[in-house]
Amino acid sequence: MPELHLLSPRGFKAGAAAAGIKSKPAPDVAILACDVLASAAAVFTTNKVFAAPIKIGREHVASGKLRGIVVNSGNANACTGRRGEADARKMCQLTAREMGCDATQILPSSTGIIGHHLPMEKVQSGIAQAAKKLGNSPSHARQFSDAILTTDLRRKAAATRFRFRGEWITIAGVCKGSGMIGPRLAPHATMLAYLTTDAKIPIAQLRKILAGTAEVSFNAVTIDDQTSTNDTAVVLASGLGAAVDSQASIKSFTAAMKEVCQTLAFKIAEDGEGATKVVEIKVRGAKTQADANLIARAIANSPLVKCAMNGNDPNWGRIFVAAGLSGAAFDADRAELSLQNSTVFKSGRPMPFNAPAVSRSLAAKKVVVDLNCRLGKSSVTVWTCDLSKDYVTINADYHT
Amino acid sequence: MPELHLLSPRGFKAGAAAAGIKSKPAPDVAILACDVLASAAAVFTTNKVFAAPIKIGREHVASGKLRGIVVNSGNANACTGRRGEADARKMCQLTAREMGCDATQILPSSTGIIGHHLPMEKVQSGIAQAAKKLGNSPSHARQFSDAILTTDLRRKAAATRFRFRGEWITIAGVCKGSGMIGPRLAPHATMLAYLTTDAKIPIAQLRKILAGTAEVSFNAVTIDDQTSTNDTAVVLASGLGAAVDSQASIKSFTAAMKEVCQTLAFKIAEDGEGATKVVEIKVRGAKTQADANLIARAIANSPLVKCAMNGNDPNWGRIFVAAGLSGAAFDADRAELSLQNSTVFKSGRPMPFNAPAVSRSLAAKKVVVDLNCRLGKSSVTVWTCDLSKDYVTINADYHT
Repeated sequence: MPELHLLSPRGFKAGAAAAGIKSKPAPDVAILACDVLASAAAVFTTNKVFAAPIKIGREHVASGKLRGIVVNSGNANACTGRRGEADARKMCQLTAREMGCDATQILPSSTGIIGHHLPMEKVQSGIAQAAKKLGNSPSHARQFSDAILTTDLRRKAAATRFRFRGEWITIAGVCKGSGMIGPRLAPHATMLAYLTTDAKIPIAQLRKILAGTAEVSFNAVTIDDQTSTNDTAVVLASGLGAAVDSQASIKSFTAAMKEVCQTLAFKIAEDGEGATKVVEIKVRGAKTQADANLIARAIANSPLVKCAMNGNDPNWGRIFVAAGLSGAAFDADRAELSLQNSTVFKSGRPMPFNAPAVSRSLAAKKVVVDLNCRLGKSSVTVWTCDLSKDYVTINADYHT
Repeated sequence: MPELHLLSPRGFKAGAAAAGIKSKPAPDVAILACDVLASAAAVFTTNKVFAAPIKIGREHVASGKLRGIVVNSGNANACTGRRGEADARKMCQLTAREMGCDATQILPSSTGIIGHHLPMEKVQSGIAQAAKKLGNSPSHARQFSDAILTTDLRRKAAATRFRFRGEWITIAGVCKGSGMIGPRLAPHATMLAYLTTDAKIPIAQLRKILAGTAEVSFNAVTIDDQTSTNDTAVVLASGLGAAVDSQASIKSFTAAMKEVCQTLAFKIAEDGEGATKVVEIKVRGAKTQADANLIARAIANSPLVKCAMNGNDPNWGRIFVAAGLSGAAFDADRAELSLQNSTVFKSGRPMPFNAPAVSRSLAAKKVVVDLNCRLGKSSVTVWTCDLSKDYVTINADYHT
């Protein structure tokens, strides 16, 4: 089977251009186009400060139908007032004109610096160039996924397919995100994720599956807990493939969506600004689901835990500190904690462990922190990365 | 007037010793002793994981009367189970025996690594040595303030006095804290603060004043938002000076306490791990006091804002992102934001500003971020520091 990519689902094309929005020459404007009017669902940032394209995007996706997505990187079009809104609408109009559809059938998306107006001449020229280059080859998919990157070091893509009653349904996605990552996406995240599928699926079902999937994938990754002004995850379903309309097919489709979205989320953690490793926080036995989430996020966002991980330091007290300040029910005397399968605390007291050996085990590309609260039955898994000197370098020098 | 110090209020002595608890030779056990049974009030960490000395300290201060404080640095005696509690009680017993008082009249305090049992032989020897050296000279005050430090680079002390009806009342304090600083002290941080006064003041009044003062001083400083297992602020009033019993004297005493505590809190921000500057976050015009606190803490704890400050980067979008994700009511279109008195956002849009000049103004030892939400009348000031590569170095290598 050929390698799957963003444009493998039937009915999709993409094009990208380097319009000079980014300070260095790189692709920064891109279009994802569907041949037909696709069923669409999206979830956006819950930050009370949200960018102009988020406002326009909410309006346009409300119908549940989209022909395509226009995206620029290098400028977030956030905190830009009314002019910013007009610029986001203009991006849709320009793209719609190229595609021969209505502007309301295009979802706009932006990522980059906050508080600067878009250079609309460059954007206009970029959209025209990207539209001319539309195609559905693996190279086109790569160009699209590169055009959405900012401080990312790596392209992030995932895809899967499953067979239902003899027919293949493909789900694919690309995303970006490396810093300012703490998405709290809700149906109404500067993590951007674009998903394509050829499934024929009712809009209400697609919305429900995206919301549920985002919760255990994009919303479960945090680099710095900074919910951006522009976070967005959107799925377009061309409907040119098999129908997802039975309980069995919905179950398969949901599992495939989860696989694609969790792969993308993990890649964001892997490519976190300055990251040398992924830290997987498993919280089990929490009193409630909300408590599990609070504890896992508090640990994942503790700068002290993240620095210890950077130094391969089994300083597990910092994990307990984070759990205790999370606001969730937590009783250290009942908890069990292991690092890379070495138990460090159990039965109300610190367990003797081989510190040099555990430290060596932390020098891995993926570290698992497993905390059993022993207070209930709720569990969650959250992904983050370590905090390195490079995170500081990247973020002390981003603007100037 | 001679320079005021921790032992200037009448009735106090201190002693310190290097007992070998810290990995490097430095004072690490100290006693603060009052000649008489002092009125005492304390506020402790609100972290659900709290150290053994916090548990014992809460018991002992409940009477409102203490003879002294015994403190060790280099080991937090946290997450150490029942043995940890017995060790904290033992510290009180040993100190009480030296001072000729009851063990319940001593408040124990510890700071350092979490999850390790105290080396009690060293602690015992340290207490005996410190008790032998008790004195009230400026040098004794310095030795006490040095013995409580961990990753701190600087000694932190403050003192003031005021005259009421012809009599002087002196208030003095020392504190420690550089990392794992996000105190949320409540009556019932590892920020430690020890305050002395010779005022004759009712216990209930002393408790009320300490709680109110902690809120606008220690609770208003954050380095990394990590509320420690050991945070403590305690005040001992010897009663050997003038009486604080009228509205006017209470007002003067409260103002003097606030001055001492805010000076100490500011010194913690100045000496934050890796700090190159203090960042003062002023939030005005918030809808409620709780909203003002949420917004100011979200900004002060944003790693992106802190890195921008390290790089003298006027990347103010990160400040809006933090305000918007704080959970408080916030409307970017109404807000006004200035950095070092340069307005960068007003009337719903970004204001043109001289970026190189503002950047130069950020290269100061103290930077003021002033955010007017224009939604209400509540305001707050919070102190933090920038996030530098040195913070990562310090915290990647603390344990091993």
